[in-house]
Amino acid sequence: MRILVVNVNTTQSITDSIGAQAARVASPGTEIVPLTPAFGAESVEGNYESYLAAVAVMEAVRAHPGPFDAVIQAGYGEHGREGLQELLDVPVVDITEAAASTAQFLGRRYSVVTTLDRTVPLIEERLHVAGLSARCASVRASGLAVLDLERDEKAAVDAIAEEALRAVRDDRAEVICLGCGGMAGLADVVVERTGVPVIDGVTAAVTIAESLVRLGLSTSKVRTYAPPRPKRIVNWPPAAG
Amino acid sequence: MRILVVNVNTTQSITDSIGAQAARVASPGTEIVPLTPAFGAESVEGNYESYLAAVAVMEAVRAHPGPFDAVIQAGYGEHGREGLQELLDVPVVDITEAAASTAQFLGRRYSVVTTLDRTVPLIEERLHVAGLSARCASVRASGLAVLDLERDEKAAVDAIAEEALRAVRDDRAEVICLGCGGMAGLADVVVERTGVPVIDGVTAAVTIAESLVRLGLSTSKVRTYAPPRPKRIVNWPPAAG
Amino acid sequence: MRILVVNVNTTQSITDSIGAQAARVASPGTEIVPLTPAFGAESVEGNYESYLAAVAVMEAVRAHPGPFDAVIQAGYGEHGREGLQELLDVPVVDITEAAASTAQFLGRRYSVVTTLDRTVPLIEERLHVAGLSARCASVRASGLAVLDLERDEKAAVDAIAEEALRAVRDDRAEVICLGCGGMAGLADVVVERTGVPVIDGVTAAVTIAESLVRLGLSTSKVRTYAPPRPKRIVNWPPAAG
Amino acid sequence: MRILVVNVNTTQSITDSIGAQAARVASPGTEIVPLTPAFGAESVEGNYESYLAAVAVMEAVRAHPGPFDAVIQAGYGEHGREGLQELLDVPVVDITEAAASTAQFLGRRYSVVTTLDRTVPLIEERLHVAGLSARCASVRASGLAVLDLERDEKAAVDAIAEEALRAVRDDRAEVICLGCGGMAGLADVVVERTGVPVIDGVTAAVTIAESLVRLGLSTSKVRTYAPPRPKRIVNWPPAAG
Amino acid sequence: MRILVVNVNTTQSITDSIGAQAARVASPGTEIVPLTPAFGAESVEGNYESYLAAVAVMEAVRAHPGPFDAVIQAGYGEHGREGLQELLDVPVVDITEAAASTAQFLGRRYSVVTTLDRTVPLIEERLHVAGLSARCASVRASGLAVLDLERDEKAAVDAIAEEALRAVRDDRAEVICLGCGGMAGLADVVVERTGVPVIDGVTAAVTIAESLVRLGLSTSKVRTYAPPRPKRIVNWPPAAG
Amino acid sequence: MRILVVNVNTTQSITDSIGAQAARVASPGTEIVPLTPAFGAESVEGNYESYLAAVAVMEAVRAHPGPFDAVIQAGYGEHGREGLQELLDVPVVDITEAAASTAQFLGRRYSVVTTLDRTVPLIEERLHVAGLSARCASVRASGLAVLDLERDEKAAVDAIAEEALRAVRDDRAEVICLGCGGMAGLADVVVERTGVPVIDGVTAAVTIAESLVRLGLSTSKVRTYAPPRPKRIVNWPPAAG
Repeated sequence: MRILVVNVNTTQSITDSIGAQAARVASPGTEIVPLTPAFGAESVEGNYESYLAAVAVMEAVRAHPGPFDAVIQAGYGEHGREGLQELLDVPVVDITEAAASTAQFLGRRYSVVTTLDRTVPLIEERLHVAGLSARCASVRASGLAVLDLERDEKAAVDAIAEEALRAVRDDRAEVICLGCGGMAGLADVVVERTGVPVIDGVTAAVTIAESLVRLGLSTSKVRTYAPPRPKRIVNWPPAAG
Repeated sequence: MRILVVNVNTTQSITDSIGAQAARVASPGTEIVPLTPAFGAESVEGNYESYLAAVAVMEAVRAHPGPFDAVIQAGYGEHGREGLQELLDVPVVDITEAAASTAQFLGRRYSVVTTLDRTVPLIEERLHVAGLSARCASVRASGLAVLDLERDEKAAVDAIAEEALRAVRDDRAEVICLGCGGMAGLADVVVERTGVPVIDGVTAAVTIAESLVRLGLSTSKVRTYAPPRPKRIVNWPPAAG
Repeated sequence: MRILVVNVNTTQSITDSIGAQAARVASPGTEIVPLTPAFGAESVEGNYESYLAAVAVMEAVRAHPGPFDAVIQAGYGEHGREGLQELLDVPVVDITEAAASTAQFLGRRYSVVTTLDRTVPLIEERLHVAGLSARCASVRASGLAVLDLERDEKAAVDAIAEEALRAVRDDRAEVICLGCGGMAGLADVVVERTGVPVIDGVTAAVTIAESLVRLGLSTSKVRTYAPPRPKRIVNWPPAAG
Repeated sequence: MRILVVNVNTTQSITDSIGAQAARVASPGTEIVPLTPAFGAESVEGNYESYLAAVAVMEAVRAHPGPFDAVIQAGYGEHGREGLQELLDVPVVDITEAAASTAQFLGRRYSVVTTLDRTVPLIEERLHVAGLSARCASVRASGLAVLDLERDEKAAVDAIAEEALRAVRDDRAEVICLGCGGMAGLADVVVERTGVPVIDGVTAAVTIAESLVRLGLSTSKVRTYAPPRPKRIVNWPPAAG
Repeated sequence: MRILVVNVNTTQSITDSIGAQAARVASPGTEIVPLTPAFGAESVEGNYESYLAAVAVMEAVRAHPGPFDAVIQAGYGEHGREGLQELLDVPVVDITEAAASTAQFLGRRYSVVTTLDRTVPLIEERLHVAGLSARCASVRASGLAVLDLERDEKAAVDAIAEEALRAVRDDRAEVICLGCGGMAGLADVVVERTGVPVIDGVTAAVTIAESLVRLGLSTSKVRTYAPPRPKRIVNWPPAAG
Repeated sequence: MRILVVNVNTTQSITDSIGAQAARVASPGTEIVPLTPAFGAESVEGNYESYLAAVAVMEAVRAHPGPFDAVIQAGYGEHGREGLQELLDVPVVDITEAAASTAQFLGRRYSVVTTLDRTVPLIEERLHVAGLSARCASVRASGLAVLDLERDEKAAVDAIAEEALRAVRDDRAEVICLGCGGMAGLADVVVERTGVPVIDGVTAAVTIAESLVRLGLSTSKVRTYAPPRPKRIVNWPPAAG
């Protein structure tokens, strides 16, 4: 089985980190193929960048020669999953939804801890659209940008663990979803500090993608995710894109 | 006052029709500037095309030399409004939201009548995200594609009026929002057949954009729609785009 | 175009203040006609007084010789708008709904800051009935009564600006609706302190009423707001009322 | 114990019928005092008439010399209960809420069958405001006006039983609330036709009012239903009212 | 009239206390029959114990020779009421629902104050399933276990009154439901400290059960609570149970 | 890895069928251990039987000598999962939730098709409690009892496929969850007739249980699912049970 794991950011080191994380949990026989979009923001933190990433991810997947058995969109709270589902016959798994869906098997309420406050509304909307917000206790921000996570891992881990603790204590979360990727030891530290299960979206998505393939299930094509109708698309994709 | 009215489709005749509709209701002293995106689908009917349009609309507005006082995104149930709000200091009005917001002043429940069934979920999501779904009785599809509307106006009007009547009779709608643009006499026929107020999103959006400008109000920048952070955007916008 | 702006309180100075506010934003050619009810409380702050005002406003409008093109009910969180819509063929705009509806074009969540705590539930119910509560972050009270606003403007402005700041900081509001009328400089001070757009219901209602008239739209009469059936009304209206 | 049962209509024969219904279920030692408002519509069927009734009911209760131990507002889906709660120290029970509250002990979902379609939205709003709509399967109208019920009882019973049957069969109601008063045998016929429990609001309200008095409980006065503040009420109540 | 009041705990002193409370408010002519289950936890505080109690309560009622006119399940936030409703033809009243339903007649929002934090989710779920959560301001825990209530009444009363005060002040509750039984003076102290009506579920349930019997109403049998189908039940009930 | 799959019915042939289904999809190295409860109904179809099954399943798992790595509760819409989560340190997966959670990755809305109408409310409640009802289009019943499924497979498949088709056509479901187990070819026939993905809860649960174990995740113990407190349990478990 071959699974494309598509970063939403154009920073290669984040792609590498996501790919490594995915590979660690993949079953024997599953090949993880990390992908970086050809255009877009070095880190996605807001609606403009997220819409651009949505389109860039779709083009990256379309440009891939294949074959592949499933696609994971590795961005927390980003736009675009529905478009991928229209374009592809194989299952598409968004890491925001993978984490939340997994969390609901482990506790009555979960919280997401993410980077910047400005991404909180995006995550809330995605959980809502996905039908996964009823048991979401809160989405909290550590105040650190995506690229800060790579620069000072110690401070990042501290800030995130602190918000996770507040989610458990003040918002009654029983499970924490990490709304940001790329740090090796993050989950372990947060587990240690909070005493609750901590979910990383990328690894959760890998197990779900594998499960869907194993069960022979893929996206329903009868309505919302029917393939695009044949029509003229002007000036797209970009020549160099 | 100058208002950009941006089509989401790349078909110029639709832009012309939208522009004419907007101009008809604009106040004296308001200049309507219709815009067609440089890339994307000739007609937008689904998530892939809608995400592409979201980005194309943003680039069209960014490429416009200005100045302008407000922007109207003239697509029903499309993605992207949040991105425009991040990029701009002037008010942004989506026609889906303009129509629904206006409908709520006229009756207890409203329905939207649109083109293809596959666009129904997109419209439902946008109304939901906008906080305007509590009084939405239904979103109904006539089964006609966007370009069919231009080809056989008589059949299109009949199909749409028929669904509007069902919305009033079966779903208890008291107001109809037309979820498709570009036909001169459509609203009049639907009013005649159903006996309820009928709202065209483009004209509603023009009055709302003018009102916001007149009241000196624009998008809040404290959180969700704060300007994008300065960062490296790779390979974008496309050379010819 | 002539718009009746009906105060819910029987205090003439409040009517004057509301009328002046409305006139400031009205288009050239729009005549604002302020109206004071013939009976009721000097200031409306609770359900008993609000129900009485609902009836008094309806009688004030019925007693007006006309003609007029639209009616604005200028009370925050008050009962009665549905009754006016039954009685009239012209559009009716409630300032609570006008403010909230306008706020939703400017930010993801809005808060209302009002006078006494006891009026908070009334405002919450009205927003709920109007289908406008999904994006309401909070309704907060400054603790000052309506008539206090006129007595010590400086203290009133301070108290209201303080609650607005809490709404932005603690409740994540991105827009503030002023749930109380009659103070010239209030909006400016709150904008300055909070950095978010601030909406006055009366001026928002004027632009919406004008827009509805301009679009040729009025209340749907097919169900909820159908005219009262012909029947015997006993001992009403009161002789001197 | 003495309970005021206040009709919302000004038709004395309806008051008599409501009073008789209430008396039939009252405990030994409970005196039922039926009251007719001094002004308002002969039958209340819409918002204008309902707001007028709200005020008329409040004045009728204020004008009553007392003492009394509880008040029942005997109108289905009418405005005003909150005002009565502000004015009085004794418990206030609305028959719409009494019926729904009782229904929830008897089945998972209940429906209301009422008279005219135009009163459906009023009932829906009242159930919503009362926090009793989550298990409401539907509010259905028989199409008969209040006064028709008195004119042709046989036809009225048939029309209502028919809608009740539809509620059970199509909307999955397990209990029926009769949203209209005054007919002796109505409940029995509907029970017979549908096989589900049928609740009359007036009798349910009597048992609830008695229970509250027996438990020594009355309206909370700390916030929403605090007594009106002392202030000047102009030209009210009307001289002859 | 004879009403079974079934304790969910197997501690006889709690049964005695519940029985006494129920008897105090019962009408003349009503006989209260307190029942203790034959198996289960001495105090029920969590899902495992609550599911066990659900079954034990059902068996206790089935084992009772009868006749009886109504059954009260006297446990706060426990499982099982739906099963009793299937098994019996007489009305079944759960004290959690009885308290909340009564509270809604007395104030706009109510809070529940209970014992241990771990029972909060159970109570929240039961209110939700019962359609009574829309006006629930909060469910708060005092931190004391059920059996602590009997051991140090003074400390228990203090802890509960303190949480009730927080519910009124911070969560805007206007009524308090006591989510724990068995203390004579508890309600009085909480009323005194908070100034709001305080409801004991057992006494509320007695009046509701009596009312249902008086109105000739019982559980609807058309769907959710239809009697179990005839079938083979293996190894049940237990020999000694 | 060893996974207990616990039937809720006491019929051994159903346990065998569930076990076979689970084994078919289990990974190499996963051992499926099917379990039949020692007491309870031969088929569970209603609340009384479901509560009894909840307790019987818990006792069956407690009586198992172990070790095991996860537990699957194989009953659609049954009570009890929360109790198992309290008792165990390993993950617990309910098949109702497993199916719904999986469905949400495949389409915008899903429907459940089950056996008897009386089990519909139980399934709806479980989905609601699990936070998985927002995207549930409907729960439909074929009208066949659990044991009928084994008796006349052809008729059962027809009845279920027919309801699935209605769910897709009338309720706009894009995915079907089979709310009943034990038939080899059922899923294939429903896929063929409806053209949408069809999910069997048992196989979905196996992949989820395996995934949780692989990710090193288990039930959060900080609040709702904390282990029962040490206390006296009277007369339980039954001697022969």
